[in-house]
Amino acid sequence: MKLLKTQIEHTEKVSDRTPQVTLVGAGPGDPDLLTVKAVKALAKADVVLYDALVDKRVLAYTPDNSLKVFVGKRANKHHYPQETISQMAVDYALQYGHVVRLKGGDPFIFGRGYEELEVIRKAGIAAEVIPGISSATSLTALQQVPLTCRGINESFWVITGTTSQGQLSKDVALAAESNTTVVILMGRRKLRQIAHLFTAYGKADTPAMLIEKGSLPDEKYAIGQIHNISEIADQAGIGTPAIIVIGDVVGLHPKYVMQKVESELLVKAS
Amino acid sequence: MKLLKTQIEHTEKVSDRTPQVTLVGAGPGDPDLLTVKAVKALAKADVVLYDALVDKRVLAYTPDNSLKVFVGKRANKHHYPQETISQMAVDYALQYGHVVRLKGGDPFIFGRGYEELEVIRKAGIAAEVIPGISSATSLTALQQVPLTCRGINESFWVITGTTSQGQLSKDVALAAESNTTVVILMGRRKLRQIAHLFTAYGKADTPAMLIEKGSLPDEKYAIGQIHNISEIADQAGIGTPAIIVIGDVVGLHPKYVMQKVESELLVKAS
Repeated sequence: MKLLKTQIEHTEKVSDRTPQVTLVGAGPGDPDLLTVKAVKALAKADVVLYDALVDKRVLAYTPDNSLKVFVGKRANKHHYPQETISQMAVDYALQYGHVVRLKGGDPFIFGRGYEELEVIRKAGIAAEVIPGISSATSLTALQQVPLTCRGINESFWVITGTTSQGQLSKDVALAAESNTTVVILMGRRKLRQIAHLFTAYGKADTPAMLIEKGSLPDEKYAIGQIHNISEIADQAGIGTPAIIVIGDVVGLHPKYVMQKVESELLVKAS
Repeated sequence: MKLLKTQIEHTEKVSDRTPQVTLVGAGPGDPDLLTVKAVKALAKADVVLYDALVDKRVLAYTPDNSLKVFVGKRANKHHYPQETISQMAVDYALQYGHVVRLKGGDPFIFGRGYEELEVIRKAGIAAEVIPGISSATSLTALQQVPLTCRGINESFWVITGTTSQGQLSKDVALAAESNTTVVILMGRRKLRQIAHLFTAYGKADTPAMLIEKGSLPDEKYAIGQIHNISEIADQAGIGTPAIIVIGDVVGLHPKYVMQKVESELLVKAS
């Protein structure tokens, strides 16, 4: 077992606790969207390894003497590769006992949580997973837009906008064939390409929205239709990370309804 | 406004509190999978309207003098139609103040939550939505199976097995064309039909699993491949409601790996 000496200052074993790792989803941002189960795990943590998207206020749930280690990406700064983070979970567990690996959203929804779990298991360390509220399924709800609605659609499809090869997933084209609600994560920079694709499937008028920093006080969103959503998102200054939601359910958003009434009045007046 | 006298015993207004309704997702079963935000809403409830799938232990978060009203379905017994429940939320809010409408899973993922929200809004009552952990996205995680995994898939698709017309959604056929992880809710009774459909798309060997009462102590699950999952689920006595999960990620389940090794040994020995 290779200890990461740059991170772990005391290389002697400081705990007699059984090594264990709990992979915990921290939810989309708002600390109150943590589960009770996650709070209980944090309260029993010897070490917390946390990501950039985790709100630091949730660290208050951990014991005062626990180690809090930031392992996320910071803009323009060095960050740990995935393999290093997985190994850190193992090393800290062997040395300190209970490691809580706190990840934004849900660890098993585009969270690379399984890659960490595999490394932990191979090291013979007990692991538990506590699901979190994913941004993919919650940010629309907070804006009172349902992912599914009787009479409108029968499913929702959550897709990464950027595959491990950096491409737009082929699933996006297949999703454009259905009336499913499509939720695209990590797709902000491919919004034009996505809109083009949906247009090719005759969906220029399908309602679409983007949400950035959802659930937080500085949440931003943009709402429109496939044919104008890129411009509206640019005007609203939507950055990354943001979720993209496409589907008729977006048409239930109060702002969408208002915009539609306004544009119809405009047509009548002209 | 028509008061439901059978439910509301005191028809006079008993509260000066502003009428409001909070639609809250209670998670998949385990009371600890409630969010902190949901707990805080329950602590401020004057009335709780709760469903059959909600664990009664979560009612302990409400004030002692709050009204707890069961509005769920009980086997072979009368249950309230959707319209009545929506109207009850309005009536109780006008009379008592803060109504928490507590729904299993997430209110906006096949929860008919939007239908309730519309009635509440039309009555001019302030509404808030607190997303919950859906069984669709959490029960696999609790079994350490990721919904998405780099190199395996790029999306997951959550579909109802039973549309408002009682049919299998057409989205299931489209999903069979992709390597997405397919999660089907309310599809237990159509499992054979679903397996048949995936087989038609050349997916007889795709890993599949069912989970019933997920996250609870009496959780049951069945795991296999499309070609034998119906028999395995029947043998395991999987009832309803259960979620069906189809996709290569299911092959990461420790039991699946074990079964595969065993069947390969069997082939070698024969």
